[in-house]
Amino acid sequence: MTLVHHKSGSVEPPLIEEKLRLYSMRYCPYAQRVHLVLNAKKVPYDVVYINLVQKPEWFLEKFPAGTVPAMNVKGANLYESLILADFLDEYFPEPRLHSSDPLQKAKDRLLVESFGKIGPHLYKLLMGPDFTEDAFQGVLTMLAKMENELKNRGSNFFSGEKPGMPDYMIWPSFERIDVIAVRYGEKGKLPVQTLPLLTKWISAMKDDYSVKPFYLEPEKHALHLEKRRAGAADAFDIL
Amino acid sequence: MTLVHHKSGSVEPPLIEEKLRLYSMRYCPYAQRVHLVLNAKKVPYDVVYINLVQKPEWFLEKFPAGTVPAMNVKGANLYESLILADFLDEYFPEPRLHSSDPLQKAKDRLLVESFGKIGPHLYKLLMGPDFTEDAFQGVLTMLAKMENELKNRGSNFFSGEKPGMPDYMIWPSFERIDVIAVRYGEKGKLPVQTLPLLTKWISAMKDDYSVKPFYLEPEKHALHLEKRRAGAADAFDIL
Repeated sequence: MTLVHHKSGSVEPPLIEEKLRLYSMRYCPYAQRVHLVLNAKKVPYDVVYINLVQKPEWFLEKFPAGTVPAMNVKGANLYESLILADFLDEYFPEPRLHSSDPLQKAKDRLLVESFGKIGPHLYKLLMGPDFTEDAFQGVLTMLAKMENELKNRGSNFFSGEKPGMPDYMIWPSFERIDVIAVRYGEKGKLPVQTLPLLTKWISAMKDDYSVKPFYLEPEKHALHLEKRRAGAADAFDIL
Repeated sequence: MTLVHHKSGSVEPPLIEEKLRLYSMRYCPYAQRVHLVLNAKKVPYDVVYINLVQKPEWFLEKFPAGTVPAMNVKGANLYESLILADFLDEYFPEPRLHSSDPLQKAKDRLLVESFGKIGPHLYKLLMGPDFTEDAFQGVLTMLAKMENELKNRGSNFFSGEKPGMPDYMIWPSFERIDVIAVRYGEKGKLPVQTLPLLTKWISAMKDDYSVKPFYLEPEKHALHLEKRRAGAADAFDIL
């Protein structure tokens, strides 16, 4: 069965009792953050996928900003991945994903914020017309910073001995970094030998119980992105 | 004594024992958020003002991002107004500024986020070469939304019966909205009769013990902004 993204003209599927509903897009790195948090907390939820190019009228009526991830909780319309993730961490406290130390939590939030600067470089490489050395160097510089950060933290994960909020918030970009090599071949390959801690972290994250069920191989991300670049009508529904 | 903003070539003043240090700029609306939170919690702090056009070398060394507000807490360099504000709210829990209800807190954070869209309009009116009707309408639309929000919340402040995090996070923009009329006269005046709840809120905020000691009249903000537009060397040190 094809995974369907609802579009303009569709009707919202009926809510499922006892389940939170997450509005998502299967390839959206921001939405993925919320999937990871819900998975980590083993919260029962159902997902309604949204076609972001032809958004359903019922979705825009509920969420005028029209972005995913989005959730309706007790009548409140919530969106913005980091706000949703923080909310879920407080609403479902087990296991706690943010550090309980306010200072560590602030440092972790700054790490996520600062890692976000990889976004424009990654976007250019994945959605732009061609390989850009500048953008690739931008990605490598950020990876070197993250390698160094792991070294300074002295733990297997950014959160310590198991993944926590900073790990889950930055993971979606890592799932897409390998798409550079899928698209451009040799010149898009990462110098993994200079990133031993990050390489180990990536491998451990892929095995994590929250990451695994939503993980997609770089080839699948690459196919979606190729169709997005071409403006293909079926860009969303390829799984 | 003139309030001095430290610039390139300066030396950082020695730290004061038992006091947190806030790096700020007297006219920066983002830095003001952190002043308000520290004031609300009556935390003893000293302020080092930074000339943002000629930043001190010692400041850039500590904070490569070079932005204010910034603080060093127990060896950690913190910045970004919302992250700092949230951190201080957890680190100094009394009085609590965020709602203790996770859902309300998420709604409040989304309110602040969505109010942020006033920023580009306000910037255009205050820093641009001339009055722009589009930008002014953008400001008025947002104010109408906030009036409606206060009505829906049914309280004097966005946080209830006293100011809390959403009130303090959006206040700095309100202090600058009256600068539009100072700069452009009649056509920049707000239709206060259509904003009764917001007008009452503004007046109550000006009387708040956290807001009052850092409040500046619109004429002072206007003078700073005029000097910034002109690239004047003394734009920061006019108080």
